[in-house]
Amino acid sequence: MPFDPQSLRYDDQGLIPAIAQDHRTGEVLMMAWMNAQSVVRTLETGKVTYWSRSRQAFWVKGETSGHAQKLVDFRVDCDRDCLLVVVDQTGPACHTNRRSCFYTAVRDGAEVELMQPEG
Amino acid sequence: MPFDPQSLRYDDQGLIPAIAQDHRTGEVLMMAWMNAQSVVRTLETGKVTYWSRSRQAFWVKGETSGHAQKLVDFRVDCDRDCLLVVVDQTGPACHTNRRSCFYTAVRDGAEVELMQPEG
Repeated sequence: MPFDPQSLRYDDQGLIPAIAQDHRTGEVLMMAWMNAQSVVRTLETGKVTYWSRSRQAFWVKGETSGHAQKLVDFRVDCDRDCLLVVVDQTGPACHTNRRSCFYTAVRDGAEVELMQPEG
Repeated sequence: MPFDPQSLRYDDQGLIPAIAQDHRTGEVLMMAWMNAQSVVRTLETGKVTYWSRSRQAFWVKGETSGHAQKLVDFRVDCDRDCLLVVVDQTGPACHTNRRSCFYTAVRDGAEVELMQPEG
C-alpha cells in the first residue's frame, strides 16, 4: 500500500510524536514532534526532521549541532498516531550532550542520573 | 533528589507521553499517555498504568487482556515532558496481538507489515 503522510493522525496542532531509536543498540534516544511536512522531508531526505514547537520551525536534527540522525527505518504504530524512527545517530542525541535524553531514572522514589555528558 | 510526579511537564490535558520498551530485547513496544496519578500508581504498584484518553479512565495495561507490563525501570527525559518505561511485557503489547504497535514500516514509499499477530 502506498504511504500517504496525510493518513497519519495528527493532534489538534497538526503534530505527531516521533520516537527516535538507535538502530545498533536499540536505545531510545529522544522523542520529538513532526508535522506532515516533517514526515515528507524525513522520508525524502533521509535526514530526520522534526517540527520545533518552541521555535515553530523545521528542525533538521543535527543541522547546527552536527548530531544528525540518518533515517534507517520509519515506522507507524497501529493507531497511526505515533512514529518510530530508527536512526543512525551521530554523537549524542540529547542537547545536554548525553547519548539519550532519558538519562534520569526514578528508583526507590529518588532520581538517579544514568549517563554523563559526552566529551 | 526525591522524585515528585508534579515536577513533570504535562500537556494542557494533564498528560505526558510514555514510551514502553522491552527490557530484554530493547524493542519499542508502544506509546501511550499517563497523568500524574498514573505515574504515581505505576511507581507504587510496579504495574504500568496509563490514562486512556478514549475511555477517560485509568488503564492498567493487561488488566483485561492479560498482556501486562511489569515495570523494570522508569525514566524521565531531559525536558521532563516524556517518559520511558522499561518493562517486562507479558504476551503481545499491541491490541492487534502483535508484539509491538510499530509493526508497519514505510519503505520506498510503501507500507510494509513487519510482524504478524501472535498465536
